Amino acid sequence: MKKNRTKEGEPMRIGIVGGGAVGLLYAFQLSKVFTVTLYVKRDEALQTIKNQGITISHNDQKKETRNVNVMKWESDVPLKDDLIIVATKQYGLFEILPVLEMCTKDQSILFLQNGMSHIDMLAHISHAEILLGIVEHGVKKNNDCTIMWTGKGRTKLAGYPETQADLHASPYINKWMDTIGLDFPIEVCEDFYEMMMKKLLVNAIINPLTAIFDVRNGELLTNPYFQKCMKQLYNEINFLVQVEKREEVWNHICSICEKTADNISSMKRDINEGRQTEVDAILGFVMNLAKKQGKSVPLTEFIYEAVKGLQNNASC
Amino acid sequence: MKKNRTKEGEPMRIGIVGGGAVGLLYAFQLSKVFTVTLYVKRDEALQTIKNQGITISHNDQKKETRNVNVMKWESDVPLKDDLIIVATKQYGLFEILPVLEMCTKDQSILFLQNGMSHIDMLAHISHAEILLGIVEHGVKKNNDCTIMWTGKGRTKLAGYPETQADLHASPYINKWMDTIGLDFPIEVCEDFYEMMMKKLLVNAIINPLTAIFDVRNGELLTNPYFQKCMKQLYNEINFLVQVEKREEVWNHICSICEKTADNISSMKRDINEGRQTEVDAILGFVMNLAKKQGKSVPLTEFIYEAVKGLQNNASC
Repeated sequence: MKKNRTKEGEPMRIGIVGGGAVGLLYAFQLSKVFTVTLYVKRDEALQTIKNQGITISHNDQKKETRNVNVMKWESDVPLKDDLIIVATKQYGLFEILPVLEMCTKDQSILFLQNGMSHIDMLAHISHAEILLGIVEHGVKKNNDCTIMWTGKGRTKLAGYPETQADLHASPYINKWMDTIGLDFPIEVCEDFYEMMMKKLLVNAIINPLTAIFDVRNGELLTNPYFQKCMKQLYNEINFLVQVEKREEVWNHICSICEKTADNISSMKRDINEGRQTEVDAILGFVMNLAKKQGKSVPLTEFIYEAVKGLQNNASC
Repeated sequence: MKKNRTKEGEPMRIGIVGGGAVGLLYAFQLSKVFTVTLYVKRDEALQTIKNQGITISHNDQKKETRNVNVMKWESDVPLKDDLIIVATKQYGLFEILPVLEMCTKDQSILFLQNGMSHIDMLAHISHAEILLGIVEHGVKKNNDCTIMWTGKGRTKLAGYPETQADLHASPYINKWMDTIGLDFPIEVCEDFYEMMMKKLLVNAIINPLTAIFDVRNGELLTNPYFQKCMKQLYNEINFLVQVEKREEVWNHICSICEKTADNISSMKRDINEGRQTEVDAILGFVMNLAKKQGKSVPLTEFIYEAVKGLQNNASC
């Protein structure tokens, strides 16, 4: 571990790109121990956060407010922070990629996008260290500077293409663990593909099935017929996981169902509220991988169309 | 056509077995022109129908009442009627089969069961002429002697194993057509397998999909994603139809969706009202045929489990 890279007493600078729910949560938490700059695109959001700070509501109704450094995102100015956390939506990456390409080899970039389709873009970044992350928190944005932290989870992280023993970002990770790690945990994984694929499979199974059957996550397990449906879908798409990991990943999916038994999945909520779902990024991505590997996935295709149909119906 | 079999002036006797919604509807309609006897199992139903006749409510609120002959069903007394219409549920056949086996070669028996699994039982009837029928009417029973005629359809009929030019039942069919045929139509088909399979495919597609998506029949067509789901399911199970008939059957299914656009399918209604569905007789039967033919039907299996799950959920 290059622990010596950060000189004693020198502030650790973290830049967070994106003022969405995830960006605000990370800016709030990390600014407790790091020198954080939050980069946002809209002037209005910039002024609101500057004037009012970020307010976070917890499930128990408790509210906290913190002031954070906030700056306007400029599409041609290099970022100077040592660790840059990219908290935009996957489709927002196209716009900010040119700035990330300017990063130097002393900098690390942590990508927090859902799905896996952004991984193909990372080839453009030739210098900086790349980290891929998964956000397991439940968080909902109320307005430009206020969020609801509905579910406390972990941040999982892995190096790309692989996690090396001497990550540039290690001092940050260590300090994060040692200080705010109890309330806002972080976990380093060795294999980014396994980490991301596990999350993708969880999303590909729990989200669409709860949406179609109109049930909470836990019912996929407690209703034996729905459990069979889950297993059938898993059997069709588990070609994405190494044979020897398949049982472990299935158990992981079931444990997530159990842990989040009372939760309404994001896809079910999106449909109920007439919003666009992430079905393209999730099942569409699985269908693409299947096509590339010459696999037939009729069930996945059916469920994909069913979700699109429910979405279409709700928005009529 | 053996038109001469029924002597001039001799009453044409029709027996109807089963006092369910279908039995009551056919007893009501056919007793306008034939000598009809309705056979029922329960004493209470027998007395009620004897005392009050059968009352039929139409969609326009109009009500009609008719007296019909009604008799107690005896499990060891041969039936003397020339044409016997069996209007019990499929699982009710086991019990009445011994009496039907006593029928002679001058008698005809018309089976009106849903699905196709009863066809295997017909080998037991060695003498009487066998006819298979399909009821396209919508009818709902309110109590032992009152029904709602919600949808006017046709009775389709075919000889088993094939329709011969000289059906014993021809005089009945001709008289039915000529007298009450306008309000209560009958249609003779040549190929029982094609006739029943067409109906089975309609049931196998419209019923479960409307139940899962929680929509009325018409939305399967108007929502382009649901239409894709329908087509996908059809493509999986159309091995049941001859290649050259597949397009015709698909068009038939779509036309039924269109004609019954505002209808709530029986399976959706069964689920909504916490009742057992006919999914075993429909998709279970398709799965059995697939197994016999060595076909893989993953989508059908998924949808089968999904309907079972919804049923299970609703009855919790």
